[in-house]
Amino acid sequence: IAKEVAKLLEMKAQLGEDEGKHKFVLKTPKGTRDYGPKQMAIRERAFNAIISSFKRHGAEVIDTPVFELKETLTGKYGEDSKLIYDLKDQGGELLSLRYDLTVPFARYLAMNKITNMKRYHVAKVYRRDNPAMTRGRYREFYQCDFDIAGQFDPMIPDAECLKIVHEILSDLQLGDFVIKVNDRRILDGMFAVCGVPDSKFRTICSSVDKLDKVPWEEVRSEMVGEKGLSPEAADRIGEYVQLHGGLDLIERLLQDPKLSQNKLAKEGLGDMKLLFEYLTLFGITGKICFDLSLARGLDYYTGVIFEAVLLHQENEHVEEPVSVGSVAGGGRYDGLVGMFDPKGRKVPCVGVSIGIERIFSILEQRLEASEEKIRTTETQVLVASAQKKLLEERLKLISELWDAGIKAEMLYKKNPKLLNQLQYCEDTGIPLVAIVGEQELKDGVVKLRIVATREEVNVRRENLVEEIRIRTNQC
Amino acid sequence: IAKEVAKLLEMKAQLGEDEGKHKFVLKTPKGTRDYGPKQMAIRERAFNAIISSFKRHGAEVIDTPVFELKETLTGKYGEDSKLIYDLKDQGGELLSLRYDLTVPFARYLAMNKITNMKRYHVAKVYRRDNPAMTRGRYREFYQCDFDIAGQFDPMIPDAECLKIVHEILSDLQLGDFVIKVNDRRILDGMFAVCGVPDSKFRTICSSVDKLDKVPWEEVRSEMVGEKGLSPEAADRIGEYVQLHGGLDLIERLLQDPKLSQNKLAKEGLGDMKLLFEYLTLFGITGKICFDLSLARGLDYYTGVIFEAVLLHQENEHVEEPVSVGSVAGGGRYDGLVGMFDPKGRKVPCVGVSIGIERIFSILEQRLEASEEKIRTTETQVLVASAQKKLLEERLKLISELWDAGIKAEMLYKKNPKLLNQLQYCEDTGIPLVAIVGEQELKDGVVKLRIVATREEVNVRRENLVEEIRIRTNQC
Repeated sequence: IAKEVAKLLEMKAQLGEDEGKHKFVLKTPKGTRDYGPKQMAIRERAFNAIISSFKRHGAEVIDTPVFELKETLTGKYGEDSKLIYDLKDQGGELLSLRYDLTVPFARYLAMNKITNMKRYHVAKVYRRDNPAMTRGRYREFYQCDFDIAGQFDPMIPDAECLKIVHEILSDLQLGDFVIKVNDRRILDGMFAVCGVPDSKFRTICSSVDKLDKVPWEEVRSEMVGEKGLSPEAADRIGEYVQLHGGLDLIERLLQDPKLSQNKLAKEGLGDMKLLFEYLTLFGITGKICFDLSLARGLDYYTGVIFEAVLLHQENEHVEEPVSVGSVAGGGRYDGLVGMFDPKGRKVPCVGVSIGIERIFSILEQRLEASEEKIRTTETQVLVASAQKKLLEERLKLISELWDAGIKAEMLYKKNPKLLNQLQYCEDTGIPLVAIVGEQELKDGVVKLRIVATREEVNVRRENLVEEIRIRTNQC
Repeated sequence: IAKEVAKLLEMKAQLGEDEGKHKFVLKTPKGTRDYGPKQMAIRERAFNAIISSFKRHGAEVIDTPVFELKETLTGKYGEDSKLIYDLKDQGGELLSLRYDLTVPFARYLAMNKITNMKRYHVAKVYRRDNPAMTRGRYREFYQCDFDIAGQFDPMIPDAECLKIVHEILSDLQLGDFVIKVNDRRILDGMFAVCGVPDSKFRTICSSVDKLDKVPWEEVRSEMVGEKGLSPEAADRIGEYVQLHGGLDLIERLLQDPKLSQNKLAKEGLGDMKLLFEYLTLFGITGKICFDLSLARGLDYYTGVIFEAVLLHQENEHVEEPVSVGSVAGGGRYDGLVGMFDPKGRKVPCVGVSIGIERIFSILEQRLEASEEKIRTTETQVLVASAQKKLLEERLKLISELWDAGIKAEMLYKKNPKLLNQLQYCEDTGIPLVAIVGEQELKDGVVKLRIVATREEVNVRRENLVEEIRIRTNQC
């Protein structure tokens, strides 16, 4: 009996194991998602608008590996470094997934000793952040970056970056937006004249960066409480960071008795004035706002910084518009390439990064609300038959069409019903059906059916390719 | 003295640390590389040929995250599992970088309960293999996958996959190639009739898979020595795996007294015959070879398997052609989706994967050998000035051009020399220069210079956009 029990238990255990096979969780990792065909079509539209603008401005394109040596990323991201994904040590080099496309670009420039380049890069980056997927915040997400590296006359490349953000956000018709602009030198100058010790510049800068999400009172108490700043210094900062405006504000601050005495602030304000002059020539100052509360978190910025924010959604169909916040950001980072160069040679850079996921969330929501039917294939014609035993004839015809460059499909059945074949066209938006039948084969023709109108015409086989091209406007 | 020494040592250590900052290695991780603008242009050409074919066959496109839950990849790759990159456990889920695009596709189908789909996916995959970069073997590399999922009449989708490989390799003009075809059921049937125990099927299959790289004698000794197969069984296998041919060989094996008695082999041979009939209708049997030595390493194949090999390089310019071997492979995997489905529901699939890196190596080498100059931007016109103090006018004009959709650049200098501006066009292949000067501004014209001919014409400012479009054929 004991033997039998043991046998049964063993059998049960085996069964359990077999069931266990299917017991794992069927999902994508936290903060990531798949893109289905419809989402890919929307993504493609957004990419097209962005990449067209990058190409219009003469950028070359590069690509870098998805991971870098861990040390390449070390010391570049300040407090955000904890969000970097590391790879497991499986022997060999220690690696991390890229956190942005800026540091790999700087590494690329230094490694190839390039001192002059205008490039774009569209690729996924990785941050172990708290995802908020409905608002378009993911752990794996695309960045679309455009950067200009090289020693040039001041603010000309910087102005072009802002022009690009303006072009892209206008093209995508995401509704009203504003591009906030500031300068790290103005911030640092402001900190100095407010009495912030040098050693606290970066951490106080991080606090200021939170002003778009939390009210001043909270930021102030973080500065004074957690970061040990004097209440007087905090209050002085509080006065400055409320300020925003245009050329008039820049002029006023250039006359500010304290700021105008600070070398860094004066430099920054002078360049900001020049920037606004160029933006006036581009005709885009209407959407640009000089905002002293803009700080941006990353450590590597050294000059102009900017961030584009959507103001509200122009979309009547959506009842509860997603709040998306910042959709683009960037700035000048003149020291980053030098951190990688063995001799510390600097290559000044300025660039912009478009946050495609947030834009994508809006476009997706808008498409869902509208009645627009989006096609996910480009198929021009379905090769069909009305009678049985014509599989071979369908295979011959579709092969001819493929070889002529026509986008064609057929059902993978020996003897499909005509109704099912027509239904497939309705479902997928295929505009034409090429029908072969005994009679057509004898006559040397193919019956071409226009799905939308149900019109049918006999086309001589040798003219079929041309006829399909004309009717689908794809030469 | 001891105190002083300690102080000096500390100072030295500090100095060492500072120097250390720049002492890290400036490189991409082992087995990876950057793509510069020229390489991107070549890559783009190869992608276009491949994706055009996928679209011609009516495929939708999807994308999945670069990493998956570790358990999603477990038990799918047989002996190759050791090559999977794991992410560090930083709290939360255990993740691995994707090893191919097939397993993520199967996971996608099961997760979304899709039983019917034709999709392509072009993305990077990761394998901790020994890189051989000159031969196009990397640890991070692109795969271009096309798969058909669904329950269909036999061999119709399988034949289409082979047609696609044939189309792509012909389009890319990589020289002569052959597509080897076999079937896992024929292999398993062969193993059975040769006297291989069931439990050794997969491992003996792995040995057979090495036949394209090592001679039979070595494979045989691995089977007998390491894997404990009887010498008689090995010799019987040796006779079969030498066989390759076309329909005639299939017919002969269908009559083979041993194989024809094995149910699996008979099924496989019957389907192989059907496949060849369809390939005859497609007119591509000239490049297809039924080869009993083809095994393919991955565990998940269940039916037809295939692999495309370049025979030699048709390129007189290259003295030592790189040996590239397999450039595409695939097969039928009817059980993989079921491994992810909670109820084990099967979705039969067949697919092909194009190995772009090896193809890219050939294209790159060919381009280097040729004199062709490849452009890395699409810029149509450079906005230039012949005199000083015209920066503002250049900015105004270029802004007009950008807004009209013209791809335009300018030098980021206040007062660039005309010669430098013209030289920039020569270097980068920009075909036109729009020159503003005092006189032109007064006359309301722009001087348009055609770089290739040095011809110069005055164009009225309001006609400039149209003139640039006509001259660069980009509407």
